[in-house]
Amino acid sequence: MTELINSVEAVDVRFPTSLELDGSDAMNPEPDYSAAYVTIRTSGGDKGCGLAFTVGRGNDVEVAAVRALAPLVVGLPVAEVLGDLHGFSRRLTGDSQLRWLGPEKGAIHMAAAAIVNAVWDLYGRRTGKPVWRLLSELSPEQLVDLVDFRYLEDALTRDEALDILRRAEPGRAERTAHLLEHGYPAYTTTPGWLGYDDDKLVRLSKEAVADGFSQIKLKVGVDRDADVRRLRLARQAVGPDIRIAVDANQAWGVQQAIDWMRSLVPYDPYWIEEPTSPDDILGHAAVRKALAPVKVATGEHTHNQVMFKQFLQAGALDVLQMDASRTAGVTENVAILLLAAKFGVPVCPHAGGVGLCEMVQHLAMFDYVAVSGTHENRVIEYVDHLHEHFTDPVRIRDGHYLAPTAPGISAEMHPASVAAHSYPDGAVWKGKAGA
Amino acid sequence: MTELINSVEAVDVRFPTSLELDGSDAMNPEPDYSAAYVTIRTSGGDKGCGLAFTVGRGNDVEVAAVRALAPLVVGLPVAEVLGDLHGFSRRLTGDSQLRWLGPEKGAIHMAAAAIVNAVWDLYGRRTGKPVWRLLSELSPEQLVDLVDFRYLEDALTRDEALDILRRAEPGRAERTAHLLEHGYPAYTTTPGWLGYDDDKLVRLSKEAVADGFSQIKLKVGVDRDADVRRLRLARQAVGPDIRIAVDANQAWGVQQAIDWMRSLVPYDPYWIEEPTSPDDILGHAAVRKALAPVKVATGEHTHNQVMFKQFLQAGALDVLQMDASRTAGVTENVAILLLAAKFGVPVCPHAGGVGLCEMVQHLAMFDYVAVSGTHENRVIEYVDHLHEHFTDPVRIRDGHYLAPTAPGISAEMHPASVAAHSYPDGAVWKGKAGA
Repeated sequence: MTELINSVEAVDVRFPTSLELDGSDAMNPEPDYSAAYVTIRTSGGDKGCGLAFTVGRGNDVEVAAVRALAPLVVGLPVAEVLGDLHGFSRRLTGDSQLRWLGPEKGAIHMAAAAIVNAVWDLYGRRTGKPVWRLLSELSPEQLVDLVDFRYLEDALTRDEALDILRRAEPGRAERTAHLLEHGYPAYTTTPGWLGYDDDKLVRLSKEAVADGFSQIKLKVGVDRDADVRRLRLARQAVGPDIRIAVDANQAWGVQQAIDWMRSLVPYDPYWIEEPTSPDDILGHAAVRKALAPVKVATGEHTHNQVMFKQFLQAGALDVLQMDASRTAGVTENVAILLLAAKFGVPVCPHAGGVGLCEMVQHLAMFDYVAVSGTHENRVIEYVDHLHEHFTDPVRIRDGHYLAPTAPGISAEMHPASVAAHSYPDGAVWKGKAGA
Repeated sequence: MTELINSVEAVDVRFPTSLELDGSDAMNPEPDYSAAYVTIRTSGGDKGCGLAFTVGRGNDVEVAAVRALAPLVVGLPVAEVLGDLHGFSRRLTGDSQLRWLGPEKGAIHMAAAAIVNAVWDLYGRRTGKPVWRLLSELSPEQLVDLVDFRYLEDALTRDEALDILRRAEPGRAERTAHLLEHGYPAYTTTPGWLGYDDDKLVRLSKEAVADGFSQIKLKVGVDRDADVRRLRLARQAVGPDIRIAVDANQAWGVQQAIDWMRSLVPYDPYWIEEPTSPDDILGHAAVRKALAPVKVATGEHTHNQVMFKQFLQAGALDVLQMDASRTAGVTENVAILLLAAKFGVPVCPHAGGVGLCEMVQHLAMFDYVAVSGTHENRVIEYVDHLHEHFTDPVRIRDGHYLAPTAPGISAEMHPASVAAHSYPDGAVWKGKAGA
């Protein structure tokens, strides 16, 4: 009997992080890290887990969006889905009615991400491989077949994508071995949340260096004098050789970004992240031109591959920060990695939140093994937070992500964690309201 | 006692239009025109109505998004809301948790549009004015106070916006009188849906001319030979002096758009609408450069003012098609009209669907009276469809929208229409599934 996808379940899971001010920044003063947590089950008894990350209120809308997509998935033959993941992705993102809510952006696109990632998780489990390795063992032809080139061809053709992948093919085995031994470089945002006082900032910055990180990140953008003071303190704490990135989380207009950053330049910021609206490609290009050699980084809110294409075409970023569940999951992120490789721009994925570190490590490691072939100037964001809720949590050693070895995409949560944090009825939320 | 906003109600209203293939195009073969229909009520017994338009599935997600925003609105003093509509808009679009679902895009931004428009409707009712007139009687200072300049200042400053409005001020009374007498020019999409056969296309094209329209629109993008044939037939039917726009609804890649359109050029298309991804600013600029003097039009899926800013900065469009409920309603659309005026680009609003004609006419008429000061090369889209469900339906005479005179934004539906089309329990939907 043909094995079918039997169910797509979505649960509203929220963590009351606003109580601790972990995760506080210029635009997100009180996040409750949350996930629309998706489990797909097949008639053969297999499953796959994925999630869309949100910051609290609105997680119910995300769950509703997953449920709106679910009828497009339930009843499909598993072999057909796994045999044409490009087609599966277009099925979700191209539905003639649901795409009106995007197209390919916002709540409905993030819901597609959760489902697509769950299907990749299923694929990994069935092949017994972590997703980074599953991807890294696909042929160049199989990989380009994942890509929807319709809106990309003016920047990246199928042949160019094939060339990139073929050039990287000979070194795959060697880089896989290197990854399994050494892991992939990380940087940490743990010291730099806006809600932390100076002492905590200095202490955590020093700890980060002691723990082997070669880059840390500070949130900025609310109080200019405080930003100058905090960056100065952090620079004194870590010395001249550690990279310090700063992140404004969209707080500024274009000229304001340029002016504000000029007061931070004396303390050698490595990159400025999200200086302005995440939709403002031309604005980022202007900021980049004005602030070079300080690098411009963005991507966690860049909603699809067409936007990334333009950021690259316009020379608007130095560092591309892909997200695991903002664009439509692994499938679209393969296209984005290929775009970045075409333009020679390093990908340093966005992580933190809930499960983002777990998922995005697979993309960066695949990039290293089979796409860009390097991790020079590439680091995965790391935040030491909420990993205990996952069955295959990230493992960090000496400032590196160790390569996951369990099959799948590492997005599965412990059933007890899901139950306790279900909103609004889980034990953690009983009698509490969100921030 | 202070009058408060007591409730924000959202209803899932759907019309089974897929049964007739009205509204069929290259990307929307079977739309069920729908609305997340919003009614705001105050403790003083006043109300305001607004809606977010969708095309069927997903309208429930839109309703969920409105409900997620509602707690930010219920309990606010009415005078405070109407006295600071800029602040009210930022309250909705800038909520630190909900904005993660956007920011300022997709389902959550459209939900903000529905609420913002309902508040403008309330404002119009309380002042006894249709919204176009209410806007046209605000001072330049009051109008620029509506605008969120944070991400716009590199293209439009507050002073420049003030200058535009002050230049138009002396002619306001004269243009208001002209509008009340002659109305505002319209064009019609009624003849050109893809689902119609050639005979119906020709017959409806001739009828449109006889009805006084000087522009019609054809959907294209599925079958190139058929598009050539249909445009040829339409051109023969209407003669050389009637403008024929064509609309690909995002069907093409950049080069494909250029190639396909070149086979239509012999039949003198006036504009090509949505040639490619609505997010592809640089792609539209390339299409425009290649196809001039054929004009490039887009906007119904342009999700916020930052995107419009860039379309204008990049010289990527000739015709700006604002939408009443894609960006965050009247307030954000005031900013977009000012941007268009700064760049000298005509605004020809997107309409059709459910209630879009009703709402958007207010914006075009305000533009004529108080912003651009002209309707040269400006037309509002018109589709003869579903107006009977509204209490203040658009009135068309000799190819012109007559200026609405009833207070508000014309988005209120008859209670019986709402009840019958409520999904899935209304009488129209009993025993039926959506397309």
